Amino acid sequence: MADRPPRATRTGFSLFHSLRVRWAELDPQGIVFNPRYFVYFDVAVTESLRAIGFAYPDGFAPYGSDLFAVHASANFVDSARYDDVIDVGVRVAHLGRTSARFELAVFRGDALLVEGTLVYVNGDRENKAPKPLPEAFVQRAQAFEPVAPTRGAAS
Amino acid sequence: MADRPPRATRTGFSLFHSLRVRWAELDPQGIVFNPRYFVYFDVAVTESLRAIGFAYPDGFAPYGSDLFAVHASANFVDSARYDDVIDVGVRVAHLGRTSARFELAVFRGDALLVEGTLVYVNGDRENKAPKPLPEAFVQRAQAFEPVAPTRGAAS
Amino acid sequence: MADRPPRATRTGFSLFHSLRVRWAELDPQGIVFNPRYFVYFDVAVTESLRAIGFAYPDGFAPYGSDLFAVHASANFVDSARYDDVIDVGVRVAHLGRTSARFELAVFRGDALLVEGTLVYVNGDRENKAPKPLPEAFVQRAQAFEPVAPTRGAAS
Amino acid sequence: MADRPPRATRTGFSLFHSLRVRWAELDPQGIVFNPRYFVYFDVAVTESLRAIGFAYPDGFAPYGSDLFAVHASANFVDSARYDDVIDVGVRVAHLGRTSARFELAVFRGDALLVEGTLVYVNGDRENKAPKPLPEAFVQRAQAFEPVAPTRGAAS
Repeated sequence: MADRPPRATRTGFSLFHSLRVRWAELDPQGIVFNPRYFVYFDVAVTESLRAIGFAYPDGFAPYGSDLFAVHASANFVDSARYDDVIDVGVRVAHLGRTSARFELAVFRGDALLVEGTLVYVNGDRENKAPKPLPEAFVQRAQAFEPVAPTRGAAS
Repeated sequence: MADRPPRATRTGFSLFHSLRVRWAELDPQGIVFNPRYFVYFDVAVTESLRAIGFAYPDGFAPYGSDLFAVHASANFVDSARYDDVIDVGVRVAHLGRTSARFELAVFRGDALLVEGTLVYVNGDRENKAPKPLPEAFVQRAQAFEPVAPTRGAAS
Repeated sequence: MADRPPRATRTGFSLFHSLRVRWAELDPQGIVFNPRYFVYFDVAVTESLRAIGFAYPDGFAPYGSDLFAVHASANFVDSARYDDVIDVGVRVAHLGRTSARFELAVFRGDALLVEGTLVYVNGDRENKAPKPLPEAFVQRAQAFEPVAPTRGAAS
Repeated sequence: MADRPPRATRTGFSLFHSLRVRWAELDPQGIVFNPRYFVYFDVAVTESLRAIGFAYPDGFAPYGSDLFAVHASANFVDSARYDDVIDVGVRVAHLGRTSARFELAVFRGDALLVEGTLVYVNGDRENKAPKPLPEAFVQRAQAFEPVAPTRGAAS
């Protein structure tokens, strides 16, 4: 991982959702069990969509759409511990034709704990077939994000 | 993702762990909630380490070591549903100096549902400082895997 | 709790479902986090219903019914630990007009770890209004249980 | 359950902890999966102990003590749904010699969704043997609760 890109910093995110780490989220190492960070990410994406004005799932339902996760990844840099108040940063980083990529990071103060990515496809509610992102969503996401999401086929 | 590598197939894995999908693991879409696959991956790595002869955590404790996840990723291709019996394939794909990379995939029959990666660092039990993988672990993992894990600094 | 009834023993159960305790299910005390036992109970009830011949939810769907939990309780006697293989015993203990009570217990070998109760109401799939248990379910549950479930309004 | 005691009301609780229901906490019925309420209860007890001035686990550590759950129960009256903001009420209802009983209830506005009980024993950190509750905890809990906790051996 010698060519790893620079780590995330707080300045890269348009929204932070704060959470207190709970006992149920820890493992016997006394740290947050790694799959739990993807639950934190899910919560942050929920709040991002709400802030954009396309709250999940009601914002997408009128379009006959639902969002389906197609990719998730995370790098675990340091650990959150019991009772820590952490800030989960989130931004829409890319808007494809049918998919949207969110970048996320978990901070304790200024210290980066975890950084990650979630990619969702906008799919038909019934058969999950990918369909173009609602244009209204694209416009609102672009209006919301201080750093314009990239566009194009590659996510 | 036009240059995405070929999808995982069952032939690539040295061990399968079978699980029945439980109600608690589903979301309102009636499918397994995506962070849950990382819990399935964790279970499969546990069984892989047991099969290698280095059961977690007791295999590493005599070396003053513990494993810490540093990277997790997954591509969600299709969804597991309630009561599905799924097979989680796992193999040690890379052995670095201080880290090990596992490749994983979830199948329902021959159908690929999810493929993923977990990277662990062998760290000091007390201060988490990375230390070389126990040589005995490297040898046993190499002996266990039909396809030899790659070696080297990059994971 | 001086008048506590006798503890559960293995002989009281018509079915056991075995589980291996996983890392994700532990807390920083190194023991299974107490709400998790209710997930184990849910799995055991699922297997009990399957064995009775009324697998959830498909067994109830033809009757326009679904099961809704109305009560859960547990006494925690001792703790399950990492990698323990535990046996979750379950039996239908009472069949009311609209509800069914399951008694459950978690054993490690002969040692009782947890005992508990789950009560479900048979409700309308759409509006959840309680409705009589399907007569076929009552008959099959009675045929399955070596110790006849009690009957009557009180659950 | 004809002799069921009156349902909990908001006036019975000394502290409320508010939570937003998250996607990960729902099941395919679109409602909170019943074991999850015990996780909500655990969070509310955590906040109750903090408010009392005996934050878990640091408040008990100087006494060589830890708290171990010995009983949990809940009645599920109605269901919390996605994105609901719910209030989890909690109070110390009984202080035994070695144990403490908390009464809990989940409300959405004034509507009762779930009511429950958690009993913890104050145990030795090393061997879990029950020991008397720290007198300072008893005094602070009594000072905190507007309705005095009952006392005595029965919990």
